[in-house]
Amino acid sequence: MGAGPRQVREAGPAQPGQREHGALAGRWARGRRMADAALFEFLHTEMVAELWAHHSDPGPGGQKMSLSVLEGMGFRVGQALGERLPQETLAFREELDVLKFLCKDLWVAVFQKQMDSLRTNHQGTYVLQDNSFPLLIRMAAGLQYLEEAPKFLAFTCGLLRGALSTLGIKSLVTASVASLPTCKFQVVIQKT
Amino acid sequence: MGAGPRQVREAGPAQPGQREHGALAGRWARGRRMADAALFEFLHTEMVAELWAHHSDPGPGGQKMSLSVLEGMGFRVGQALGERLPQETLAFREELDVLKFLCKDLWVAVFQKQMDSLRTNHQGTYVLQDNSFPLLIRMAAGLQYLEEAPKFLAFTCGLLRGALSTLGIKSLVTASVASLPTCKFQVVIQKT
Repeated sequence: MGAGPRQVREAGPAQPGQREHGALAGRWARGRRMADAALFEFLHTEMVAELWAHHSDPGPGGQKMSLSVLEGMGFRVGQALGERLPQETLAFREELDVLKFLCKDLWVAVFQKQMDSLRTNHQGTYVLQDNSFPLLIRMAAGLQYLEEAPKFLAFTCGLLRGALSTLGIKSLVTASVASLPTCKFQVVIQKT
Repeated sequence: MGAGPRQVREAGPAQPGQREHGALAGRWARGRRMADAALFEFLHTEMVAELWAHHSDPGPGGQKMSLSVLEGMGFRVGQALGERLPQETLAFREELDVLKFLCKDLWVAVFQKQMDSLRTNHQGTYVLQDNSFPLLIRMAAGLQYLEEAPKFLAFTCGLLRGALSTLGIKSLVTASVASLPTCKFQVVIQKT
């Protein structure tokens, strides 16, 4: 590298005098907020693609294994996110409150939007509906992709199950899509 | 599911009357900001673990393939993030400006912090230094893990290379760690 690199300047805030730089930074800042919102989505796309590339058994066995790997990754990420919660909130929460929090705060943290509705039969079954689930939006152009949907849902099923697990609730989480990009997550609480 | 679930309520903002719920929401909101910052980190940890679990050839060949897969995923995520930038900013940017933007805005979008310094030899080589690189912080407890560092750097090397690629700059990006959790990324611009 010749004489070696020398310091240009600290990568600090834009200098007031740098007008063009400031204007660019403003535009980039708007871009950044979009990028920020999309980082998880891009990463998720890559994970799905990578898993399908390497577990290339096209039969139901290979498919099932990839779904299970994705669900497991989602579970551990959900657990880890759940552990970030202030511990004091966990003691005096009712089941329904926990589900509401997932619909609002967990969803905003991951998808920058709230879940659209939450229903329950008051017997331990909850249906969480997202009318424009971000991980399905790009597929929403054609119904012909409906059969591809499960691989874009497995991680998020695990994410919900993992966050619930950290909050002390054992559950089964499945997802279904009737018309893209609407998605329903069914949470069935496992009483022990 | 018996009579089927019925609507509880829209997952909207907390009701003013729900004092306890409001207090919880405030505490959760603080937790959410932390969770938000950590989502990428958790996901990255899972990707690394998953790749090392399934490309289990422990020799240099298997290691190299996993690193290359991670770098490729980072490249495509970096490209996609780069495409989110307002197109008008791309035309009148100098190389050094692009690097500064990566150090600030891309880094903040992904890691919630800025790069600590940027140096150059003014001949197409840039050294970007992060004194507390988030993906290495958890490893920083012991120097004995230094040999594990490359697998926590490959994705980010790809991320930088991908963002540069979208911005019209072809590069080679490598990373080195002398003392955890400080990390240097060397970007060498490829003139064509």
